Formats: sequence, C-alpha cells, structure tokens
Amino acid sequence: MTPTTLVLGSTDAVAEVSARIEEFFTGMQAKAIPFGRRYAELWEAARDSTEGGKRFRPALVVNAYHAFGGDRDADAISVACAFELLHTAFLLHDDVIDGDTTRRGRPNLAGAFAARASEDGVSAESAAGWGAASAILAGDLLIHAAQAQIARLDLPNDRRSALLDLVEESMFVTAAGELSDVAFATGVDVPALAETLSMTQWKTAHYSFQAPLLAGAILAGTGDDALRALGEFGHRIGIAFQLRDDVLGVFGDQHLTGKSVSGDLRGGKVTPMMCFALQHDDGELRDALASGAGTDRDIARLRELLERSGARAFTESLIADCARIAVAAIRSSAIPAGLQEQLEQVAIRARERVS
Amino acid sequence: MTPTTLVLGSTDAVAEVSARIEEFFTGMQAKAIPFGRRYAELWEAARDSTEGGKRFRPALVVNAYHAFGGDRDADAISVACAFELLHTAFLLHDDVIDGDTTRRGRPNLAGAFAARASEDGVSAESAAGWGAASAILAGDLLIHAAQAQIARLDLPNDRRSALLDLVEESMFVTAAGELSDVAFATGVDVPALAETLSMTQWKTAHYSFQAPLLAGAILAGTGDDALRALGEFGHRIGIAFQLRDDVLGVFGDQHLTGKSVSGDLRGGKVTPMMCFALQHDDGELRDALASGAGTDRDIARLRELLERSGARAFTESLIADCARIAVAAIRSSAIPAGLQEQLEQVAIRARERVS
Repeated sequence: MTPTTLVLGSTDAVAEVSARIEEFFTGMQAKAIPFGRRYAELWEAARDSTEGGKRFRPALVVNAYHAFGGDRDADAISVACAFELLHTAFLLHDDVIDGDTTRRGRPNLAGAFAARASEDGVSAESAAGWGAASAILAGDLLIHAAQAQIARLDLPNDRRSALLDLVEESMFVTAAGELSDVAFATGVDVPALAETLSMTQWKTAHYSFQAPLLAGAILAGTGDDALRALGEFGHRIGIAFQLRDDVLGVFGDQHLTGKSVSGDLRGGKVTPMMCFALQHDDGELRDALASGAGTDRDIARLRELLERSGARAFTESLIADCARIAVAAIRSSAIPAGLQEQLEQVAIRARERVS
Repeated sequence: MTPTTLVLGSTDAVAEVSARIEEFFTGMQAKAIPFGRRYAELWEAARDSTEGGKRFRPALVVNAYHAFGGDRDADAISVACAFELLHTAFLLHDDVIDGDTTRRGRPNLAGAFAARASEDGVSAESAAGWGAASAILAGDLLIHAAQAQIARLDLPNDRRSALLDLVEESMFVTAAGELSDVAFATGVDVPALAETLSMTQWKTAHYSFQAPLLAGAILAGTGDDALRALGEFGHRIGIAFQLRDDVLGVFGDQHLTGKSVSGDLRGGKVTPMMCFALQHDDGELRDALASGAGTDRDIARLRELLERSGARAFTESLIADCARIAVAAIRSSAIPAGLQEQLEQVAIRARERVS
C-alpha cells in the first residue's frame, strides 16, 4: 500500500502541500482543545501519521495540473492535500484492520495511544481497545477532511462535480480492494491469481496513481484523450509499483526499505506473487508458511521456495509488462512532452527501485 | 446514541428519505458487482444497517426546512439523507469500537459477516477480524457518502459552504464525544460529572438534534436569531434525550426498549447517571459492577444502588431542566408557530418516553 520515493518535478509544490497540511492540523489541534486533552492529542497524532510520507500523490496531482496549463495553484494544493489526507486515513484504518501497531519502524497512532494507556496502568486489553478506537476515529476525521478539500473548491459546478465523482470512485474502489485483501488474508476467500491482481489494482493503483493524475488533469480542464491516457498509465504503473512493493516485502534489503521482511510473510498476505507460488506448491510452501517467519532461517527458506516456484520471476515479468504498457499509453500527442518525461521516470522507478 | 421514535409531521418526507436511501444503496450494490460477491454483500449489509431506524434526524431536517419556507424538496431530502447515512456510519464504527456484534436484537454487520465466515469454516479469530474489517470499511464508505450528499447540492457557494461547515462541525464534535466515551469506558480517563455531560452533548446531541435542525434552517436561508434558538433547543433536548436513554438502559422495560438492560451495565459505560452514583458510592456499587450484571438478581441489586445513591432522581431532574430550557429557547418570534408545536412534542417525548 505504500510505494516510496518518486522522481518528480514541483518540489516547491510538494513543500506547499506539506505546509498546507501542517496548517490544517494546527488549526484542528487548536479547535480540539476545548474538547479535552485526549482529543488534542488525537489530532497531534493524526498529524504525525502524515509525516515521513514522500507526498508523491500530491506531486502527481500538481505536476499533471501544471502540465495541462493549470495556474490556480491554491486549488491544485487543495486537491493534492485531499489525496494525502485520504492516504493517511487509509493507512490508519488498514493498520487497525491488520492489527498492526507499528509503521515505518515506530509505533503508529494505535500503538502509541495503547502504549501510553498501558504506562498509565490501564489493562492490556483496554489499552489495545483504546488504541484501535482512537485510530478508527482519526481515520474517520481524515476521510471527512479529505473530501472537504474538494467540496469547498470554488469552481463551476460541473468541474467540482467531476472531481467529486473521481474521489467517490477512489473511495469506492479502494474499499473494494481492502475488503478483498482482508478476505484473502483471513481465509474467507481463496483467490485465483487474477483476483489478487484485481485486488492490487483496486487497493493501491486507483487512489495512488490513477486518481491523483486524473484529478490534476480534470482540475486543469483537460480533454478526454488525455484523461484516457493518464487513466491507463496510472492503472498499469500502480500495479507495477505495488508488485515491486510485494517483491521488496520479501526479497528487499530491510535497511533500504525500512520494512521488516517477515511482516508480509507473517500477516498471511496473499499477494499475486504469493498466489502464484501457492498455485505451484506441492505442500512445502504451505508448511513453511504455517511454521512461521520468525528466524532468518525461516525467511531464507521461504525466499528459496518463492524463487524456486518461479513466483519471483513471474512477478518481475509482470512488472516489466505493466511498466511498458504504461509508458506506451502516455506516448500520445494528448500528453505534454514534459509530463511524458516525468511519468517515464516514474515508470523506471516502479521497475527498478530497491527501496 | 440511539434515541427512538419521535412525533413529527412530514411522514411523507420521511418516506421519501427512505426511498432515496433505498435508491442510493440499490445503485451502489449494482456498482459493486464487478468488484466481487463480498463487496456486493457489504453494500447490502450496509443498507440493512439503515433499516429499523426511525429516521428522526431526517424528520428534523425536513420539518425545519419547510417551517422556514423551503420549497426545494429534493435538496432537503439530500441533506436529510446525509444525516441518516452519517448516523449509520457512526453506529457501525461505534459497534466495532465497543466490540458489539448485535444491534436492535439481531446481528449487526460485523456480527453477520463474522457468523457467515465461521459457518464457512474460518477460525473464530479470523472471522471476528473479517467482521470488524467489513464494518470499518462500510462505515468509511457511508461517512464519504453522507458528505457527498451535501457537497453535490447545486446551491450558491456561501450556502453550500455553511452546510459543509455544519457537517464538518458535527463530524468533529461527534468524534470528540466518542473518544471521551471510550476513554471513560476503558478507564483511560476517570471523568468528573461535568465531563460525562459534555461527552453526552458531543457524542449525541450535536449530530442527532442540533445539526439536523440547523441544516434544515440554513438550507431554507433562515436568519441568525432562529439559528441561535434552534441550536440551543437541539443542544438541550439532545442531552435530555440521551439521559432518558441512559435511564431506560438501566431501569427500562426491555420488552419496550428492545435493548438488554444489562448491556449498559456490562460495557462499563460511564453515563452521567453512573458517574453521579460512583461519586456517591462507598464501595458497594463498584463491587457490584465488578461482580457483573449477568443475573436478574445482579441487575436488581445495581438498580437498587443507583436508586439509593440519588443518581436516578438526579438524572430525572436534569432531564426536566434540559427539556424546560429547550422549550423556552424556541418560544421566540423567530421560530414559526407550527415548528414550535412540533418541537414541544419532541421535548415532551424526551421527558416522558418509555421506549
């Protein structure tokens, strides 16, 4: 769910998005004070949850907007903020759903709230409940705040309406992807490979790539040909990015990725790579997964099995295909040359990144 | 959180709201089909979650709107739907936070999803996780859908903006109330009486009474005097309603309320009534609560202790005070006579209802 750094122009714009997000949370924290210390702490922790991200969704919004001649920066920043807040909300709820209490190597909101309650003498069960409840509420507030950024744009009704459609679709598609992911991880459904690929597209590609690019373009008043090309690019490159994330989640260098290699293996995540491997498994992989990924030896064994099944090579070839189709889609006269170049860099990064 | 039936006019409008909600969910279910069976089931279950409610928030919106001369019914229905969807979202997340798997005497969304997964052979832990995840996602979708009803109104910018402000405030205040409620129930904070009353106002009164009345009035273009009066009425009557709910939650006839009497006592809920009783407790109530509310005898004992501490009488007198102040607020020339009469009926019901 969290592809990392992206090479894109508009670093100033990204700084402006960060400043606007900071301003938003400062305002909310101040508003929260009359509602008690805990509520102010919740807003502070929600702000912390947005930190450490690379703001690449905002960068996609702003770059697309500028490329198509948009010149009302404040509007683009609002839309960019909407995607960053939505992303943070999804991460908060995703962690509650997965029962995770850390992210990027430190306690997440739920983990930090639970830890503080434990220190204050609250029972472990109550502290965990308090942490999860806080994260659910913080996510709720940010889902609302994200949409407010779009709803409050002072635009002609049809343009605001097109943006609202897009954000609504993102919400709808992402929830579908998250539901599938949970169904697979809990064993409620046993997916075929095609279903894990759909899940990847729904859960990540739409709100992380397709929708930000389309939002920037729609805001600038771009025509249908460009929207189709950007939609296709975002769809394909989003899948490539997430598949690369899946590969790094198992084979990556955790000093570079900042993520524990055993996390994906332990959580029962059924990525397309894992699904492929399980479909070609004679029982060894299932046994190895069942006995856990606690030791370096367990991990080495799981890696070997994934490698041997052809799952890693299969995933690498899918990534290359997706990146190729993505780049072909934007080599169109409808996409300005500067944006084409930026997006090709994104595609190279999706294919080749190691962190 | 769930005050029951309300005497109000506009039953046609309430039927129209129900029809619009039905239409919304039918559309979403159809859109969900390409995203897999589970997602279509999620939308179906989300629709079921709106059923059995009395639609009294929609009734407040529509009655206020008509009373102030509003005549674009479709807009009022949209705003009314927004509050009903928001209410459903809050109930869904409230149940996840409280770990409840039933509501109104039948399995809620989380409970139904978990039960079906269990029947299909999924482990109890995974089934519970699946149920909770589904309810979190359904709530997220409805929070978004509620706001979309407002965001898409074709109104002058300042009026839509005022409505967005109001819904944003409702979201903000309700989350503050829910956070306090959880902090008290988990023992993260030990509240003073005043804090439990604030919690009641934030968690229930704002989004259930104040905001729906104000939304109808703002949509109709009402002036500030009327808004002030309605705000005061909603604030006070919302507290009265919730306090009555708290009393019925312990002393009510569960054949009439449809709620298990032991529920509130078991969940560790710190209502203002309970807070008052605990402040006047010499240890007996604490001991009785600790030993549970499993048997009729336990419940009889707890009732007796609450009665004897003066907590019940205290709460009754607060209800009467709040209802009196609420009614005084709307006896103003700014409030049309017909609406005054309707709201006085609401106040009588808040004071006297038994279900």
